[in-house]
Amino acid sequence: MKSEINKYVDHTNLKPFARKMDIERLCTEAARYKFASVCVNPYNVPLAKALLKGTDVKVCTVIGFPLGANTTKIKVAEAEEAYDNGCDEFDMVINVGALKDGLYDYVKNEIKAVVDAVKGKTVKVIIETGLISDDEKVTATKLACEAGAHFVKTCTGVSQGVATPEDVKLMYETITDHSKTHVKASSGIRTYADAAALIEAGADRLGTSSGINIIEGAPENVYNKYRV
Amino acid sequence: MKSEINKYVDHTNLKPFARKMDIERLCTEAARYKFASVCVNPYNVPLAKALLKGTDVKVCTVIGFPLGANTTKIKVAEAEEAYDNGCDEFDMVINVGALKDGLYDYVKNEIKAVVDAVKGKTVKVIIETGLISDDEKVTATKLACEAGAHFVKTCTGVSQGVATPEDVKLMYETITDHSKTHVKASSGIRTYADAAALIEAGADRLGTSSGINIIEGAPENVYNKYRV
Repeated sequence: MKSEINKYVDHTNLKPFARKMDIERLCTEAARYKFASVCVNPYNVPLAKALLKGTDVKVCTVIGFPLGANTTKIKVAEAEEAYDNGCDEFDMVINVGALKDGLYDYVKNEIKAVVDAVKGKTVKVIIETGLISDDEKVTATKLACEAGAHFVKTCTGVSQGVATPEDVKLMYETITDHSKTHVKASSGIRTYADAAALIEAGADRLGTSSGINIIEGAPENVYNKYRV
Repeated sequence: MKSEINKYVDHTNLKPFARKMDIERLCTEAARYKFASVCVNPYNVPLAKALLKGTDVKVCTVIGFPLGANTTKIKVAEAEEAYDNGCDEFDMVINVGALKDGLYDYVKNEIKAVVDAVKGKTVKVIIETGLISDDEKVTATKLACEAGAHFVKTCTGVSQGVATPEDVKLMYETITDHSKTHVKASSGIRTYADAAALIEAGADRLGTSSGINIIEGAPENVYNKYRV
């Protein structure tokens, strides 16, 4: 499984000050290392899509990011526009306040609305593990599964909290159909050891800006085909 | 001027985990201290509007917050929906990456599109001083003025950077028509001393979650009418 750890990586640059040249470098690196995707802000989707044409690297963007406290209508509109711009994967942030208020139908319906908006493309639901309790992590994971999400994801990396093997394991074990819903770990993943521990705990995808460092640090028997 | 320092305060809770009870408390406090506004995420605008009915406290929300890296279309849609929900003031984040790439028309047109969307209501343009150079602060301030913004604002408080008197002074001195465009200082404003220094530097509004602390710390001759 880990023999192609590059396939786990969503190569990420969500910095508000990312320039065109930064996105160009991100896409060049993603193509070179054959990462799963580049993850960029909505403004940069058309550029990334154009740059990655002819490669297998997907374009991923973020929806309602990073606070998740805008409205369902805007999350859907943002997803629709990114879809129209050729985006392949959509990492949306749940409404954490609504979750904490017990408005589970609201949270689920919002996820479902985004899932519906992107017509079968991959939706990852960021539950922001650093802001919620273990009970809330279980609830949020269940709601995401019920709403048809393809991934449940740990963190935005903007608010507090990083991906931990404990959280990934809890989310993985909460998912009942592992053919339908996977776990994406994100935030604070800097080394091969970090990545390996999260994959071991159940992660099928890693959101990180340290993808190259992770790959360069991998043992020869784990990663060699794409080492450069 | 400072005798009613409460009038400077946008009483702010933009936390992603803010619950209904947190917004209720924010609004109760804002009404009690007669703050200029409450500043809440778009999801909480209808609640805040209902709670503040019959008071002079305005409802302020944030647009494209905090990264500013979504598209103009979504910023406009977000502003329009908040407008329809009765929102009075709109604090939008510029596209910092586009500014750094020299795409000044893009940055200005985006601000203008939001200004137009809210039909004369107050637009504050967050230039994210912690992420840009002094030259870029001057450019961004000029673009906001040209686009018809009512305020230029320092920081989101999410990315790096806090409001400094130096930045406020630079922004204030860049504005040519002080009857049309004002400065809002935001991020890191915790005490009366912080507030006084920023007002002295040219700020006409303060974005802070420490409004009560600021007021309670003010000298008797500066703030007494509303002390409770």
